Amino acid sequence: MPDSSSVPEVLFLMPQVNVKRVLDDLYTLREIGKYKTGVHRPTLSDDDMKTRYWLREELLKLGYDVHIDGVANVIGYSPTPGKKLLCGSHLETQNHAGWLDGALGIVYALEAARYLTESNKADVGVDVMAFADEEGHFGELIGSNSLVGNLTDEMLDKARNRTDGTPLREALARVGLATAPRTLIDRERYVGMFEAHIEQGSSLEVDENLIGIVTSIVGNWRFQITATGVQNHAGTTRMDMRKDAGAALMRMYNQIEQQFPLHAGSKTVWTIGKITLYPGAPSIVPGTAEMLFQFRDADENTLKHLKSVLEKIIQAENHNGPCEISIEMRGRSNPASMDEKMLREIEAAAETSASGKHVRMPSGAGHDARTIAQILPAAMMFIPSIGGISHHYAENTSDEDIALGAQVYVDAVTRILTP
Amino acid sequence: MPDSSSVPEVLFLMPQVNVKRVLDDLYTLREIGKYKTGVHRPTLSDDDMKTRYWLREELLKLGYDVHIDGVANVIGYSPTPGKKLLCGSHLETQNHAGWLDGALGIVYALEAARYLTESNKADVGVDVMAFADEEGHFGELIGSNSLVGNLTDEMLDKARNRTDGTPLREALARVGLATAPRTLIDRERYVGMFEAHIEQGSSLEVDENLIGIVTSIVGNWRFQITATGVQNHAGTTRMDMRKDAGAALMRMYNQIEQQFPLHAGSKTVWTIGKITLYPGAPSIVPGTAEMLFQFRDADENTLKHLKSVLEKIIQAENHNGPCEISIEMRGRSNPASMDEKMLREIEAAAETSASGKHVRMPSGAGHDARTIAQILPAAMMFIPSIGGISHHYAENTSDEDIALGAQVYVDAVTRILTP
Repeated sequence: MPDSSSVPEVLFLMPQVNVKRVLDDLYTLREIGKYKTGVHRPTLSDDDMKTRYWLREELLKLGYDVHIDGVANVIGYSPTPGKKLLCGSHLETQNHAGWLDGALGIVYALEAARYLTESNKADVGVDVMAFADEEGHFGELIGSNSLVGNLTDEMLDKARNRTDGTPLREALARVGLATAPRTLIDRERYVGMFEAHIEQGSSLEVDENLIGIVTSIVGNWRFQITATGVQNHAGTTRMDMRKDAGAALMRMYNQIEQQFPLHAGSKTVWTIGKITLYPGAPSIVPGTAEMLFQFRDADENTLKHLKSVLEKIIQAENHNGPCEISIEMRGRSNPASMDEKMLREIEAAAETSASGKHVRMPSGAGHDARTIAQILPAAMMFIPSIGGISHHYAENTSDEDIALGAQVYVDAVTRILTP
Repeated sequence: MPDSSSVPEVLFLMPQVNVKRVLDDLYTLREIGKYKTGVHRPTLSDDDMKTRYWLREELLKLGYDVHIDGVANVIGYSPTPGKKLLCGSHLETQNHAGWLDGALGIVYALEAARYLTESNKADVGVDVMAFADEEGHFGELIGSNSLVGNLTDEMLDKARNRTDGTPLREALARVGLATAPRTLIDRERYVGMFEAHIEQGSSLEVDENLIGIVTSIVGNWRFQITATGVQNHAGTTRMDMRKDAGAALMRMYNQIEQQFPLHAGSKTVWTIGKITLYPGAPSIVPGTAEMLFQFRDADENTLKHLKSVLEKIIQAENHNGPCEISIEMRGRSNPASMDEKMLREIEAAAETSASGKHVRMPSGAGHDARTIAQILPAAMMFIPSIGGISHHYAENTSDEDIALGAQVYVDAVTRILTP
């Protein structure tokens, strides 16, 4: 249960936001799929579906029209006429991950819905959305991509669970969504889209800021790099006769380590997430080696330049031999700029509740707001992550920071809708 | 079926060896667990057991006393009195591997047994042995280590299949060997042990030699190297804040590539067989990374020196940070010298049938002869591997080279037993 004693009393007294209700909701979700201090709610698991029906119930209480669509997006339509803001985030989590990643933005959106309902602001409203599978158990932001029309039925047919290979269609059928229609966003309905999230990094904490106002979401270009050599016996094959695919990949990595810092931007990041040597036996020189590699930056030109640097590294390695390295782009999200007008309203709200403790920053992580930015003005705000820990059950944020974030969020929603 | 047309007619006419029978036996074994042009006979699989019972039947026909012992060694005792040579190799194979690796040495030994039986050389004989699990599905040369007394019951209790984790005891029970006694070699019975094998490398082929006379079997020191960093989000964790365990391992590998050539012997080999990053997801900076690393040499001092070089590389990496690398020895076989007296007899046999086309050489691969050399004079001979391919279904040797090898083998056995 939340420890309300750490929350400054003033926040409980402010009329706009029911901080206790926000914390109670988050602690309720924390119990669903609980794993150590975090949660384990993979997309379309029983616990994931429990949270979707929980959100549905909460929105029905507000008089909302609520749908769970054909990819498990939960969409709550406000009954009020007039301008709408699309608010939300996601409910499923990475495996054995943190309790706030996704849930925070859902509960903030729900609180904004309650606030506007209780304030009888009959001319504006927020629609609340839980975007399905932001965490990529079955694909790439399947929920938001479906909403904006990027996702074909063929792509759905092919999508499979990354852990156990279950087809997405099968998983949807299991939870009764086989025939549910997929929703497309009615872009005329919204002034924009707004998502809150934990930072998942340590910048806010290190600089003692409380609110991050996201200026852009970085692009993320992902590759599979494959080296092909000749599989051979690790005892009988002389070093000068080998075509060791693993060694070739590691030499290439060494070039990345040397050259990327010379070409990258100050906030570029690059990561090797997985390496597989085939056959992967202790006494066999690997004949094939694969690597999942990605880099991210807020500037598309930097991404393009790094791709050419990578290609040159591979060219040089192939020139030197003895293995052949090939590269295949496995995914590509381009950087998205957030809406400046919305940013200014969030900034004004942050200045009101956290004067001097907010900062503009890019988001290094991908979010549904990046997808929605393709068709609507979009904005995001961050609250601090303790120690920057993310995608791990130890992920956490203080109740105090959560409460302040809720205040800024609801204030910003009001300002965006009634400027 | 064998293409006998490629075998010089003279070999069929030589009285000592029935070349057709040797080839027929090898092609019979090739059908058991056939996989593409090779075979798939993991230790204690149904197909592996079929070959053991096939060998048993063939030896029973010669009047041998045959046992399949408590680790699935097949041991055929010659009925003749007098001096004995222990001859053999192994029947199981690596997964989806070659048809001659192991089987060749078994069929040569069987042919030597038949030859001596048919020659009515009543005063000498060969015992024929199929050493179990030379290919390490359950452990390290379990069959030969059991025979020389290196293997305790506790080690047997712990041994598990490297592919599916099945306990060795369970696998032995499945094939009816749960209560079979384990055999210890009676060292007084033998003048020595002799094993033939394909080279598994390309030296013989490249230099146009037909017979390799093994002077020593290299030692093989094996390590698991583990880097520990901090698992984190690949988008939100700045490069200068990361403790990327995968990157640390690859930097260390780069040092191995640079320093090992300066310290290794001319025939030293080193291999990274497997790399695993945890959790191994595209968008997570790995918090732990593991590597299976090994090096081999015929000189124990070189092995010792390389171990200290490796330890220094790791020390330097730990000094530089930010990750912590640890190293654990996972297995260690020391080099073994082959018996010089036996080598000279093999050399004489090779010179008779392949004048000027034989060479003394170390074995880069481990073999049961290395284990048996701990208690008996031991010797090995190689025949060429086409393209040096090994541990792959494409492994092959021409029928002509197989036939010549059989001739040299039986001749050498005769010379060793009746010098």
